[in-house]
Amino acid sequence: MEPEMSRSKAAARIRAAAVAEFAEHGYGGTTTRQIAARLDLSPAAMYPHYRSKEELLFAISYEGHRETQEVLAESDLPGEQPVVRLRSLIAAFTRWQAAHHALAKVVQYELGALTPEHYLTVVEVRRSITALFRSVVEKGITTGDFDSPDAEGVTLALMSLCVDVCRWFPAGAYTDPDAVATLYADLATRLVGAEPATLG
Amino acid sequence: MEPEMSRSKAAARIRAAAVAEFAEHGYGGTTTRQIAARLDLSPAAMYPHYRSKEELLFAISYEGHRETQEVLAESDLPGEQPVVRLRSLIAAFTRWQAAHHALAKVVQYELGALTPEHYLTVVEVRRSITALFRSVVEKGITTGDFDSPDAEGVTLALMSLCVDVCRWFPAGAYTDPDAVATLYADLATRLVGAEPATLG
Repeated sequence: MEPEMSRSKAAARIRAAAVAEFAEHGYGGTTTRQIAARLDLSPAAMYPHYRSKEELLFAISYEGHRETQEVLAESDLPGEQPVVRLRSLIAAFTRWQAAHHALAKVVQYELGALTPEHYLTVVEVRRSITALFRSVVEKGITTGDFDSPDAEGVTLALMSLCVDVCRWFPAGAYTDPDAVATLYADLATRLVGAEPATLG
Repeated sequence: MEPEMSRSKAAARIRAAAVAEFAEHGYGGTTTRQIAARLDLSPAAMYPHYRSKEELLFAISYEGHRETQEVLAESDLPGEQPVVRLRSLIAAFTRWQAAHHALAKVVQYELGALTPEHYLTVVEVRRSITALFRSVVEKGITTGDFDSPDAEGVTLALMSLCVDVCRWFPAGAYTDPDAVATLYADLATRLVGAEPATLG
């Protein structure tokens, strides 16, 4: 095994252990010692990969946001009607929040624990995600496909609805990420006031 | 001042200090010592009111849920059309999440830290809140006022949308709880598929 590959594999294992610990005890209630213990490592062995708990949180948070951004880029259908684009993007975003709910919780709820510099780096990715949804909403309003008096408010609600999936998933009959994705694509269509004729 | 009143006043101050500490450091990252220090108390002085950090979390969580339940009971308009009831309930629920966002965050995100017995007590109140929204959604579907193929999914989304307000509020142009309440009453009307004619 190449040293580089081994190194990045070890770092990935440390991040996964940290997500599990943060999900269980919260970021504030977790020590780097606990994370290391989960992997039978000494805290010193973790140091070459992540020099502090905050550095580890930043790596997790940044990776989570970048992954979401990539999933959205792959799901976008720029040539299609706004309602088709919106449905595809909402389904992908929702599916990710459900499928990775433990990671997503850390990504969404612990932003306040980042250093100001790290926070700004993550928020930049976050803003580009919101901007993508906002641009689709605005496009739909411009073309008349969407009937929405308030692009900002509707975008805020769409993001909020999807992000909160990681808090409650799974619940009741909704235990399959694909089922939540389909439900939310339908509900997003209603939220933006797309013509019933364009409902899938 | 009566001893009882003084006692309950002291307990309320302790709960408020705990909410502030939990909001800042998370439940897991807060000690009873820190909460006491915030009030210039010794941990021993807190003991007659709350014997552990978990007991304090339970008191906060239970009170928050009961308060929400009361706000909803006061806002319900059982004699009115389903869409009028839904709008009034969603507006009240949203307004509470926005106006008390630090408390609401503790109430919503730290449920997993409760003892199983305390968790069940809080979840009972939580279920009655969901059941109220669900009954209004089902009523509207039965009367034909709402066009929704999936009462469970729509109710889940309505609750999720409102609950997530405490995570993001305030944001952008939405800094007034009443503005979010009005936006969300409008969006809830769309989510349940109420006839445009009944839109306020």
